[in-house]
Amino acid sequence: MAPLKVTFLGPAASFSHQAAVETFGDSSDLIPCVSFADAIAAVQNGDADYAIVPFENSTNGSVVQTLDLLVDRSGIYTDVEVCSEYYLTVHHCLLARKNLIPTSPRDYSSVVKLYTHPQAWGQCEIFLTKNFKSVERQDVSSTSKAAEVVLKTDREVNAAIASRFAGEHYGLDILEENIEDIANNTTRFLVLKNMKPRRAEISHEDDKTPPDQDLPQTVSNPKKTLTSFMIRQDTLGTLADALLIFKDFGLNLTSISTRPSQVEAWKYVFLVESETEQNRDMVPAIMERLKEVTENCRHLGTWVNQLVSA
Amino acid sequence: MAPLKVTFLGPAASFSHQAAVETFGDSSDLIPCVSFADAIAAVQNGDADYAIVPFENSTNGSVVQTLDLLVDRSGIYTDVEVCSEYYLTVHHCLLARKNLIPTSPRDYSSVVKLYTHPQAWGQCEIFLTKNFKSVERQDVSSTSKAAEVVLKTDREVNAAIASRFAGEHYGLDILEENIEDIANNTTRFLVLKNMKPRRAEISHEDDKTPPDQDLPQTVSNPKKTLTSFMIRQDTLGTLADALLIFKDFGLNLTSISTRPSQVEAWKYVFLVESETEQNRDMVPAIMERLKEVTENCRHLGTWVNQLVSA
Repeated sequence: MAPLKVTFLGPAASFSHQAAVETFGDSSDLIPCVSFADAIAAVQNGDADYAIVPFENSTNGSVVQTLDLLVDRSGIYTDVEVCSEYYLTVHHCLLARKNLIPTSPRDYSSVVKLYTHPQAWGQCEIFLTKNFKSVERQDVSSTSKAAEVVLKTDREVNAAIASRFAGEHYGLDILEENIEDIANNTTRFLVLKNMKPRRAEISHEDDKTPPDQDLPQTVSNPKKTLTSFMIRQDTLGTLADALLIFKDFGLNLTSISTRPSQVEAWKYVFLVESETEQNRDMVPAIMERLKEVTENCRHLGTWVNQLVSA
Repeated sequence: MAPLKVTFLGPAASFSHQAAVETFGDSSDLIPCVSFADAIAAVQNGDADYAIVPFENSTNGSVVQTLDLLVDRSGIYTDVEVCSEYYLTVHHCLLARKNLIPTSPRDYSSVVKLYTHPQAWGQCEIFLTKNFKSVERQDVSSTSKAAEVVLKTDREVNAAIASRFAGEHYGLDILEENIEDIANNTTRFLVLKNMKPRRAEISHEDDKTPPDQDLPQTVSNPKKTLTSFMIRQDTLGTLADALLIFKDFGLNLTSISTRPSQVEAWKYVFLVESETEQNRDMVPAIMERLKEVTENCRHLGTWVNQLVSA
């Protein structure tokens, strides 16, 4: 039996890689891609069973590149749908090469340089001010890259701020954990699959751990539905009409994202996420009603809400 | 009479600088700031009459930093409101030091390096492929920075991709104009003022060109209203209810932006823009209704739609 193939945005030891491991396990074939587009294209063309991509962060908001791929203006990912979600809490650690920095007693006085992604400095400001006030900071393209740089640089005493996952991946000492200022900084990932009975379906029969089968599927589990649409702008209040349809069917709107249509300036595609206690049978009826007030609309997937059932 | 003070995101010759000049004229005191926050804070504390900040781009969508400042989670810009908007079409030019590159006949064979912002390469791909296929490309932090670098580098023959405005600011040759692939790539700027009768009001009496007085104000001019709110999540369909209020008052929803509340994970602040043919007197009634279904809400401004009246 071939292992599941799962694509994610690399490099190795990225937060996407961690989300893939925690969702699909180490025995799956986890494939790093250079872009979100490559990760999703592999699912569309059947080279991968699943892709896992970040959708939004609890502090920074939407991941615009993912929104644009879901909007799919050129219609090249028409067989891809969302089948699950995964919440990953972002924790930062202080990492260094094995046995380089004394930990008992803890002594960071030899450290001359710190490496991390620009966003992580701000997220660890209290810890950094206390322990590394005048130490040089070097930006790198990702926190996992910081871990890699620290592993490969042996001419100076330096440290990286990155995840425990990255520290273990590169075999580094984990000097401190959870050094972030803000608790509960969480990224929500979406799991994408091909809706047509291709490779993914064949794997389903043999494999025990595809995410949409592995989760509890009782009626009481709330479900989320993601749709996209472009409204007709010739009548007053069409957007409100479109949104009201979800309410008519007893679905609670939980988020709305807006992206330029790129067909016409100042015309938008809306991505609407809604939640319900009921099952997905109402989706076709909702889409029928949406068609009446939109230029085009698409059902992007229905899956079990992991925030509530967690 | 003191000139109007207007803040914008620098450096000099940036697109924000260009928008400020085109909105307020050269005789105003235009003040570059290192961040959007600094530009808006100057209006809040009365050091500037206006700030002009990018709100959205027709291709790339919302400017998240501006959204977050308008959301104003810490309540530090409570006196700032939107009073106008300005549409700036983004055109790119090929720029070089004066008389460095022959233009008649045009000969770019001596050029060894090109400078611009990473986003601009993709926006000028057709022109670049035709004329500079194997020329080295150097990323810089902004297109105006590219113009500045080209002005200051005299050891090699190089060129910048930046606006005509930046070319004129730095006294460069404008070798080609409108080299962008996509027509109508437009950024919408918002003009912010202090709603309290401080410096801005005093200036209004003397000055002839504040943006909200300079524009036609007849009843037939459509107006836009921007509001922000955080919904109560305890009842079903509250977001739809909130949006329906605008329709009840005859306002057409034109855009919705969602940002994390940062109060609680997965709780959002919605920024809703609506449009009407009528005057602003209905705003207090709308806000009263919004209060009933939201945790908090704010009227961020009402101004004349410049897209329709242009």
